[in-house]
Amino acid sequence: MTKKNQRKSLSMTALFVPEIRALLNNKSFSDVKSLISKIPAIDIAERWHNFSHQEKILIFKLLRTSLAGELFEVLKFEDQSFLLDNLDNAEVSQVLNEMAPDERAKLFKDLTPKVIKKFFKLMEKEEVEDVRELMTYDEGTAGAIMTTDYIELRKEITARGAILKLQDTLSFDDDLDISSIYVTDTGHRLIGVVELQDLIKAPSDMLIEALMENTDFIKINEYSPDEEVAQSFKRYDLIAAPVVDEKDELIGVITIDDIVDVIDREATKEIYEVGKMTPGEGKMISYATATVKELISRRAGWLVFLLIFDFLTGTVLKTFQNSLSSVVALVFFIPMLLGTGGNAGTQSSITVIRGLATGDVSFNNLKRVFKLELFAALVMGLIVGLVAFTRALLLQSDPLIGLVVGLTMFLIVLLAICTGISLPFLSKKMGFDPAVLAGPITTSFVDVIGLIIYFKVAQLILPVLR
Amino acid sequence: MTKKNQRKSLSMTALFVPEIRALLNNKSFSDVKSLISKIPAIDIAERWHNFSHQEKILIFKLLRTSLAGELFEVLKFEDQSFLLDNLDNAEVSQVLNEMAPDERAKLFKDLTPKVIKKFFKLMEKEEVEDVRELMTYDEGTAGAIMTTDYIELRKEITARGAILKLQDTLSFDDDLDISSIYVTDTGHRLIGVVELQDLIKAPSDMLIEALMENTDFIKINEYSPDEEVAQSFKRYDLIAAPVVDEKDELIGVITIDDIVDVIDREATKEIYEVGKMTPGEGKMISYATATVKELISRRAGWLVFLLIFDFLTGTVLKTFQNSLSSVVALVFFIPMLLGTGGNAGTQSSITVIRGLATGDVSFNNLKRVFKLELFAALVMGLIVGLVAFTRALLLQSDPLIGLVVGLTMFLIVLLAICTGISLPFLSKKMGFDPAVLAGPITTSFVDVIGLIIYFKVAQLILPVLR
Repeated sequence: MTKKNQRKSLSMTALFVPEIRALLNNKSFSDVKSLISKIPAIDIAERWHNFSHQEKILIFKLLRTSLAGELFEVLKFEDQSFLLDNLDNAEVSQVLNEMAPDERAKLFKDLTPKVIKKFFKLMEKEEVEDVRELMTYDEGTAGAIMTTDYIELRKEITARGAILKLQDTLSFDDDLDISSIYVTDTGHRLIGVVELQDLIKAPSDMLIEALMENTDFIKINEYSPDEEVAQSFKRYDLIAAPVVDEKDELIGVITIDDIVDVIDREATKEIYEVGKMTPGEGKMISYATATVKELISRRAGWLVFLLIFDFLTGTVLKTFQNSLSSVVALVFFIPMLLGTGGNAGTQSSITVIRGLATGDVSFNNLKRVFKLELFAALVMGLIVGLVAFTRALLLQSDPLIGLVVGLTMFLIVLLAICTGISLPFLSKKMGFDPAVLAGPITTSFVDVIGLIIYFKVAQLILPVLR
Repeated sequence: MTKKNQRKSLSMTALFVPEIRALLNNKSFSDVKSLISKIPAIDIAERWHNFSHQEKILIFKLLRTSLAGELFEVLKFEDQSFLLDNLDNAEVSQVLNEMAPDERAKLFKDLTPKVIKKFFKLMEKEEVEDVRELMTYDEGTAGAIMTTDYIELRKEITARGAILKLQDTLSFDDDLDISSIYVTDTGHRLIGVVELQDLIKAPSDMLIEALMENTDFIKINEYSPDEEVAQSFKRYDLIAAPVVDEKDELIGVITIDDIVDVIDREATKEIYEVGKMTPGEGKMISYATATVKELISRRAGWLVFLLIFDFLTGTVLKTFQNSLSSVVALVFFIPMLLGTGGNAGTQSSITVIRGLATGDVSFNNLKRVFKLELFAALVMGLIVGLVAFTRALLLQSDPLIGLVVGLTMFLIVLLAICTGISLPFLSKKMGFDPAVLAGPITTSFVDVIGLIIYFKVAQLILPVLR
């Protein structure tokens, strides 16, 4: 964000709080309403903690139903609970009925059975069924992010007929998204999709059948992993996609805003894994809400595990104790050799991990990946080996030591790159995310094997060590 | 992707090639047309190299204009050039007129001035102006990803009037996206936005003025960085947003599909930076097209730079040569100490980098970040210090050595976490991406300072070294 924009959004979010508060004090309720209706719900939610308990309830009650619903959806769980506890039954029922079905199901997953039971009594029977159904989907599946609010048409209707039907069924206040309309047969099975804008553009007597587009490539199974759904949104530039069950019956719709969240979550997961942290299902650590305990629980596990893994480097070094005592200069180059090895390994593993995540790399082009990487490894090994040789010569003025360091550097870079590209595949083959093993372990693995290579090379080349 | 789905998409992409080819051989051109119209353009583009030169030209000429346009947009630049070279002038002009303005401007940026001049002669004057304008925007700005095809209405028209106007102006074949319609005043200044679906839902005599929504929070300046635009799409769950110039005049529209690409590019950039690679403006290394040269050029720079930075570790170790010779056992723990320090630093820097990227962290909550991290560092340092102490005791059975190693481990973790959180902020303060400096340098920096700490602590605690 540029400084100018930071100022702009800061002033916006900071200024409306005192303004609303002043209007509330003056009991200018209609002004509060008109002011709030101009501010996006997310901006209000972000400043929600600035209001007192009473103000929160008052503001919420003043909002138009649909606005209240929007605000409610983006509030934190605690704030949602607080409001539900302080509204009367009619208001609670209105809020719950107004919420998007997927958001409502998410809320219910966090409520206690007792509260759920109470709320179910306040809701229409149909909506209760809907919540029950949606709650059965595990997080990370298509079903968990789909909405069950959508419009369905038969293929025999005309464009004009469809528009009239939409106008008949919908009131202006309706939040239902009708930008895509799904076409089903009498068995409720999905057969196509029509964009609202195509209904407008089409000749009025044209049949939906002739107008609709094929959904074979874009329809989604209810249990598909949501990352897979995201891939398909990206591939086909989708804004929305229909979800079907095993009988090909339409059961919901996924929209791009939920997909953007999935894409963000996957990026966080990947970055955390690469960064040797427990990815925690892609839940980002937010400094705004994080506790010291959370920071530690996300990090200590891997840190200690890798430390214990690194115990091996001590064992290796102790094994070669005699070589070390005879040629102390060998020690000088250990951090440089291992550090560069780790860096080279990380570079390769990250290229492969990213490729696997975006679909650019798969087991099908394994061969090409290895071939490219091996050639690159040879060249990079040579370059880095030469630099390391020069460094060793400068520091120690012993060409044999230079040779040992340079040759080891070359071999370690080869080893590191091979490890860096193999581990993501291995990790995936074992059913993990590619980055789970590869990100953290590459460096530690290269450390241990790299040291053994170093001393073996030294024993081979240096006469004193033979 | 699950195996089942991989099979599905594989068979789909693999099977249509021989089928199309057979139909072409039989001269069943109408069958080719109807088959191709069922396959998404991106899937055809992915298999485009399977067709011969002649087949490519034939298929392209057979497609309906709008389908040809869609396919053309997703082809690689070489394939685009090939087609443009092999179509007659009328066809070229049709393709160029059919393209989305932003895609067309992107294509023209890669063409030679001679070819551009030739194509300009084939295009309508208005479109030439449009390309000229769009080409002036630098990559990474809002202007470079906006389209200039959109619908504009005056606020005095009614909902019904608006729909009729849309139906009058647009033909069914029109690719123009009308799901959001922008409202401007006589000075062409943006005053609001109406969703097409709200036009349908609204009472037919309702004025656009009463129907439209505020655009103050979502309108975008033409020169805004596209990452910033992406943040705002995520924040407000946008599908499209209007772009204005400094006079607040509407000049274009950005849609979510381009934003998804920006989000992906930013994630790649961040991951590559963290992975010690030259991010290359977020251009992903694709193994499908990458050369050994590209792999090396993206990696060798940082690898050699960090190697040279690591030269310092050699200098430090040589300085403490005497300590090393007296107590060889100190060497055993060097990789473990530096490795763990690097890991701890990476963990913290990645949390901050991700937070800066998503807006969770800013210079405003710097204090909170440092406080949380420092407490976490103390606890993690203690845990890891104890583990390291135990390891040293087990390997060397000398409590004093154990103390040196454990204490150093504690101090290195503190150092690493402080470095890990400071470098991203420093990097940002200096005007770089937070990950540019922090990702690669944290480990190397901790290596050098960590070694100095180690020997200073040893000299303090071990009597032989005094």
